[in-house]
Amino acid sequence: MGKKITIRDIAAEAGVSITAVSFVLNGKGGSINKKTAQRILDVCEKHNYKRNYIAIALKNKSTHVVGILVPDIENGYYSRIIKCLEGKLHDLGYSLIIANSGYDIHDFKENIENLIEKQVDYCIIVPPSKVSLESKKTLRDIRDILNVPYVILDRKLDFGNTSIVINNDVNGGYIATKYLLDNGHKEIACITGPNSVSSSSDRLKGYKKALEDNNIEFDPSLIYEGNYEFDGIEEKVRDIIINKGIKAIFAFNDLMAYAVYKVCTEQKLVIGKDISIVGFDDNQFSSLITPGLTSVRQNIELLCDSTIKSMFATKAFGEPTIIEPTLIVRGSVKNVSSN
Amino acid sequence: MGKKITIRDIAAEAGVSITAVSFVLNGKGGSINKKTAQRILDVCEKHNYKRNYIAIALKNKSTHVVGILVPDIENGYYSRIIKCLEGKLHDLGYSLIIANSGYDIHDFKENIENLIEKQVDYCIIVPPSKVSLESKKTLRDIRDILNVPYVILDRKLDFGNTSIVINNDVNGGYIATKYLLDNGHKEIACITGPNSVSSSSDRLKGYKKALEDNNIEFDPSLIYEGNYEFDGIEEKVRDIIINKGIKAIFAFNDLMAYAVYKVCTEQKLVIGKDISIVGFDDNQFSSLITPGLTSVRQNIELLCDSTIKSMFATKAFGEPTIIEPTLIVRGSVKNVSSN
Repeated sequence: MGKKITIRDIAAEAGVSITAVSFVLNGKGGSINKKTAQRILDVCEKHNYKRNYIAIALKNKSTHVVGILVPDIENGYYSRIIKCLEGKLHDLGYSLIIANSGYDIHDFKENIENLIEKQVDYCIIVPPSKVSLESKKTLRDIRDILNVPYVILDRKLDFGNTSIVINNDVNGGYIATKYLLDNGHKEIACITGPNSVSSSSDRLKGYKKALEDNNIEFDPSLIYEGNYEFDGIEEKVRDIIINKGIKAIFAFNDLMAYAVYKVCTEQKLVIGKDISIVGFDDNQFSSLITPGLTSVRQNIELLCDSTIKSMFATKAFGEPTIIEPTLIVRGSVKNVSSN
Repeated sequence: MGKKITIRDIAAEAGVSITAVSFVLNGKGGSINKKTAQRILDVCEKHNYKRNYIAIALKNKSTHVVGILVPDIENGYYSRIIKCLEGKLHDLGYSLIIANSGYDIHDFKENIENLIEKQVDYCIIVPPSKVSLESKKTLRDIRDILNVPYVILDRKLDFGNTSIVINNDVNGGYIATKYLLDNGHKEIACITGPNSVSSSSDRLKGYKKALEDNNIEFDPSLIYEGNYEFDGIEEKVRDIIINKGIKAIFAFNDLMAYAVYKVCTEQKLVIGKDISIVGFDDNQFSSLITPGLTSVRQNIELLCDSTIKSMFATKAFGEPTIIEPTLIVRGSVKNVSSN
C-alpha cells in the first residue's frame, strides 16, 4: 500500500502551495493558471489522491449529500422521481441518501431526524399522504428538527415559508375528463383516491370544472371513492359497468384503471370498444397492456428541475411551483360522437 | 435558538464524564451502568442533542453510510432490492446513498469513485450487464479504487476474494421449464436475454437440464435471443406463435412475457388456453394482468439479508451465496396432459 499521500506531498510534487491544491480540488481554482491546475490534477490522479469529503464537510459544513424521503421507493412514480433527481444531482456533484418513510407520520419524523443526523446539506421531502389534522403536533416537531434547506414535493404541506413543488392535479383531472367529453361521453364515472388526499380532491375539482364548461350537471352518484391501489375496488367497478351500465370511466390512477381492465376481461367487455377509460400517472405498464391506457402524465423532468432550483434558491418561493401534466393518448377510449 | 449544547454540557448535567457520554452515544456503552446510560440519553433528548456524525466519522473513519450502485433504479426488480435494503440498513443505523450506473462500464467506474469519495463504509454493487472482456482493464481500475468492504450482487463478477450474492438462475430456468413439462408441453420455445449476460445463459442451462431429465432432446431452433425488454421482440414472438405454431413459451423475464400477451391479443389467442407462458422476475404487474402470469420469483428478502451478512463479515466468503427462487403459479399455463 505504501505511505498515504497527503495534500502536502501533492503540492510538493506539483511545485505549488497547499492552498493552490486545495483551491483546485474544491472547485475554487478560478484564480489559478489553467496549466498549473491541470498539473495539480495530474499529480492527484497519478497518486489516486482524493478529496477528503469528511474533512471538507467539517470545515465547510457541507457534505455534498442531499436526503430524499418518499413514502414508497418501489412505487413506479417515486422511483422515476428518484432516478431523475439522482442523475441531475450527480451532475452537480451531490449524492442522494434515500429514506423510505412509509405512509406513517411517526416513521416520517424518525426518518427526517435520521437524515438531519447524517448532516445532509438539503432535504427533498414527499410527505406521507395520511397527514391529517391530529398530526399537527408531529408536523410542528418535524419543522423544528429541519435545520437545513428543504423542498416539499408533491403535496401542499406548508410549514410556513416553505418551497413547494407540485403537479397541477386540478388541470390533470380537467384534461382527462375533457378528453372523454370530446369523444362524445356524457356519463363519466370517477374512481377517486382516498378523499383525504389532496391529489384526489384536486383531480375531482378538475373533473367538475370540465363538466361545468361543457354544461353537464355534476352527478354525485357517479363518484366512487377508491384507494389508489389495484386491489379492493373490483366490486365498485362491477357496480359501475354492470349494474349501472356506464361506458366511460376516469380512474384517478393507473393501478385502479388496471382493475377495470381485469373486470372487463372477466365480463368479456373490450376496453376501447365497449368501455372507455382514462387513467392517471402513466405507469410504465400502461403502454404495455392492450389496448394501451390513455393516461395523464406528470412531467417528472420538469418537477425535478424545479425541485433542484427551489432547493438551491436562497429563500423559499412565495407560491408553490406548479408543474403542468399532459395527456398521453393511447387506445382505451372509444369515440362515440357519431353514435 | 439559545446557546449550542455541547457534549461537555450533557456530561455536566448528567453528572458523568465526557467519555461516558461519548461511549453511550456511539453504542459502546456496554461498560456503563444501564441506569446511568439511560440518564445520559434522557439529558440528550431533553436538549435535542445529536451525535455529530461528521465529527464521529473523522475520528472513527465511519460515516454509517452504505453506497449502493444499480444499473437502473426505475427497474422494478432493483427498486424492490433498494427498498428492502434501505429498511434493513435503517434498522441497523445505516443510511443508503444510491447511484444509478446505467449499463455502461465507464459510468459504473465514475459512480464507484464518487461513492468512495463520499467515504461510505461499505458498497453494495450490481455491475452493469454489459461487462465484457474488453472491459477488463476498467474492472481492474475499479478493484483498485474500492478501498472499502463491498458485496457484488446479482452477477458473478469476481474481483478476487470478493463476496458475491446471486440468485440461482440455473434452478430458476429449471423450475419454469419443469412446470411447463409437468403440464404436458413438450415443445417449449425460449425467449432468452442477451447471450452475453450470465443470468440468461444460466436460465438456459436450467431449461436444458429440465429437458434432459425428461428425456426430451434439446432443439436449438426453439431458442430465440431476446433483449430483456418489452420492445423489439414482437417479430420473434410472431414467428414462434404463428409461423411455427408453438403453444408453450418460457420468457426469461416478465417484460418479454408481456410482449407475448400483446401479440396474443392482436392474434385473438387466449393466454392460458391457446398459448401457455411462464415468465421470470415476478414483476408487480404480473399479478395484475389477465390471466395472471406464472413467473419465477427471486427471494429478495433473503437476497438482502445475505447481502448485509456478507457486508459485515470480516472476510469474503469463499463461494458465492446462492439464493433459491420459487415459482409463482397463476393462470398463464394450460394443462394439456390429458389431450
